[in-house]
Amino acid sequence: MNVSRRLREDADPVWQKIFRHPFVVELYEGRLPLEKFVLYILQDYHYLVDAIKNFCLIASRAETADQRRRVLEIAHLEAVSELQSYEQFLTKLGYTVVEAAAVEPIPANLSYRSFLLATSCLKPFPESLTAALPCFWTYAAIAEHHRTRLGENPQPLYREWASVYGTDEYQQLVVRLTALVDEVTRTYPYGPLREMFVTASRYEYLYWDAVYGQESWPA
Amino acid sequence: MNVSRRLREDADPVWQKIFRHPFVVELYEGRLPLEKFVLYILQDYHYLVDAIKNFCLIASRAETADQRRRVLEIAHLEAVSELQSYEQFLTKLGYTVVEAAAVEPIPANLSYRSFLLATSCLKPFPESLTAALPCFWTYAAIAEHHRTRLGENPQPLYREWASVYGTDEYQQLVVRLTALVDEVTRTYPYGPLREMFVTASRYEYLYWDAVYGQESWPA
Amino acid sequence: MNVSRRLREDADPVWQKIFRHPFVVELYEGRLPLEKFVLYILQDYHYLVDAIKNFCLIASRAETADQRRRVLEIAHLEAVSELQSYEQFLTKLGYTVVEAAAVEPIPANLSYRSFLLATSCLKPFPESLTAALPCFWTYAAIAEHHRTRLGENPQPLYREWASVYGTDEYQQLVVRLTALVDEVTRTYPYGPLREMFVTASRYEYLYWDAVYGQESWPA
Amino acid sequence: MNVSRRLREDADPVWQKIFRHPFVVELYEGRLPLEKFVLYILQDYHYLVDAIKNFCLIASRAETADQRRRVLEIAHLEAVSELQSYEQFLTKLGYTVVEAAAVEPIPANLSYRSFLLATSCLKPFPESLTAALPCFWTYAAIAEHHRTRLGENPQPLYREWASVYGTDEYQQLVVRLTALVDEVTRTYPYGPLREMFVTASRYEYLYWDAVYGQESWPA
Repeated sequence: MNVSRRLREDADPVWQKIFRHPFVVELYEGRLPLEKFVLYILQDYHYLVDAIKNFCLIASRAETADQRRRVLEIAHLEAVSELQSYEQFLTKLGYTVVEAAAVEPIPANLSYRSFLLATSCLKPFPESLTAALPCFWTYAAIAEHHRTRLGENPQPLYREWASVYGTDEYQQLVVRLTALVDEVTRTYPYGPLREMFVTASRYEYLYWDAVYGQESWPA
Repeated sequence: MNVSRRLREDADPVWQKIFRHPFVVELYEGRLPLEKFVLYILQDYHYLVDAIKNFCLIASRAETADQRRRVLEIAHLEAVSELQSYEQFLTKLGYTVVEAAAVEPIPANLSYRSFLLATSCLKPFPESLTAALPCFWTYAAIAEHHRTRLGENPQPLYREWASVYGTDEYQQLVVRLTALVDEVTRTYPYGPLREMFVTASRYEYLYWDAVYGQESWPA
Repeated sequence: MNVSRRLREDADPVWQKIFRHPFVVELYEGRLPLEKFVLYILQDYHYLVDAIKNFCLIASRAETADQRRRVLEIAHLEAVSELQSYEQFLTKLGYTVVEAAAVEPIPANLSYRSFLLATSCLKPFPESLTAALPCFWTYAAIAEHHRTRLGENPQPLYREWASVYGTDEYQQLVVRLTALVDEVTRTYPYGPLREMFVTASRYEYLYWDAVYGQESWPA
Repeated sequence: MNVSRRLREDADPVWQKIFRHPFVVELYEGRLPLEKFVLYILQDYHYLVDAIKNFCLIASRAETADQRRRVLEIAHLEAVSELQSYEQFLTKLGYTVVEAAAVEPIPANLSYRSFLLATSCLKPFPESLTAALPCFWTYAAIAEHHRTRLGENPQPLYREWASVYGTDEYQQLVVRLTALVDEVTRTYPYGPLREMFVTASRYEYLYWDAVYGQESWPA
């Protein structure tokens, strides 16, 4: 069994909880209160900026020129097209990038980003790449899991947002990233990879949960 | 007004909440359930190990040889005497270091450590040093704030644990670290320093709160 | 006067020596012994691979999302089109990438790359970006300086190699990179920037000199 | 055969050239021109400062708390006693630390330091530790190799400088560091370790050679 399949199985309890989380279900069914969706979108600016930074760090640690190129392609894609489509989505919600950048990140947001960045700075390349996988992969899996719900979703805004993750293009990106993880982890001990993958999956859950509960700092 | 005083004032709402947190109050009054204290101590192993790692990183970014030496003294102190006294304390509770190392860190623990490590890897030296200050300083401030309570504390274990932070030696360590922060931040913009200090103080609060509530991962 | 112009002036004695270096002159006049050119090309594989790694590191330290995107564009360009055109050039010389990758870097090569990587890991973003500038800029300046010589160059291989650096596309890349350096160094102390720029320019000279003298390790 | 012995054998041709280098021989025989010795000592300030920084970085990457403590002990020793004894030696030569810090590093000095720092930032812990070994170990080996010469050395200054490396204390430090390398490289592929060890040994040679030849930058 290749590493990615094993990781997916080991994280399954967390992924099932993500699939069933009210934020995810209500979003795909079109019942999510708009204010929660807006909070999520505004929080995502800092996440996206650090995700690009994170892929730069991972690329810098790649073991071969070819692997570096493949990680760079993702960083480049995010920095160019993702940030642009994010900006367009913000505009539809009546916000600017400057306003999004001024929003204070909630604890779950800062904590997840810090975990990814600290990992990429200090852990070997295979672990960093594995830690970056659940973000991409869970979004693709959620889109597949709730595909029927999305078809009946009466909220055009949510439909538009979610439809991206069900496209062939996005699903192919996840396939490429997963294949790269399988390639670079072939001789790597499984224990630390599992820890990275499960921890990042758990942070995904905590992030959905935090925006749903409109989490804030203690003082 | 020097930077450390300004930081202390700006973080005061968080610090007041720390002083009044039930974990802290019950610990200093001797009323804290032992299982919560044990959870806290067992969690602290990963924190301590990463705190030493963090000071190594900060030392590597120091701007002068003299500042590096002063940060190294703290890293060395923690790696030698702190880890040793931690080990002795574990023994009293009936645990070994191996058992502590095997305990899975709770989210608040991993998140706080990740925030400190990511900061030290990626931010300039003055910001990293400032982010590391609240851990040391709040412990000294708690010890001062609850000094009377500790005098009447009927629990020898808690008295022993807490008395360390009220000693002249510990208070002097905090004075030295605070002076170093004031020295290296003299010409540094205040905004990012404030963000580092307040964020680390908030993580201190979240950590106390998480061990009190016996936090765990979602799945 | 903007920073880049000042840097250029301060490094002028080194740049003049580069323009007059026999490797450069003989290459542009078509008189360079082929074996020296081959050595240079084979050495360049490691340099190119680390230059991409270096731009990933610099991108990871960028202070804004927009600056990161602009650095990433360069990293991406190098990783995709530069590596490809390098590979095609190797083929013309009768070598493969695998053979180039197996060549041991000479001291000047490893030293220059190590200087750039250590800078990008440990120094602030404006210094790292400034250290990366001379490589791009001197190649463009050499192409301008020796434009007439190249027109009369009887060696098609050297003409092809050199013509890249005189194209509008390459000159525009240098303009963009120089503008970015000017933008991010606006409020940065000049001293360390000067040191980075002059040192990288000196390493450029030492690199030309080392391949011309067919430098090797002591044992 | 343990790793350190194998490394020592593979680097033997370089080490033999170091033992026979005129700087080393003339220093141990008391015939080295004083100006060359002064240049060496003045250059060493930057080297020592970065060596401490390097050990902080290596310590930050250690895989266990115990290994980190052992690396930190060396960093601490260098930052406290080595820097102090360096300062006293400078005083005897009529210089201050401020003057030493103002001396521009020669290419061999900056290159070697950059190689060590880039390695410690970007390579796994076992490689970084191995790269740091030749500096300590060659000094101890030189002292053993030329022990008789030192006994007959008529120059008190050179005798004092060299005698440090022949002491039991210094030889024990090298034994401890070598044992740590053997311990952390047990399951690590030998190829990259060999490359690190041989390259650092070569830089040691180049450094001796550069101060003997009073190397300078091209312009």
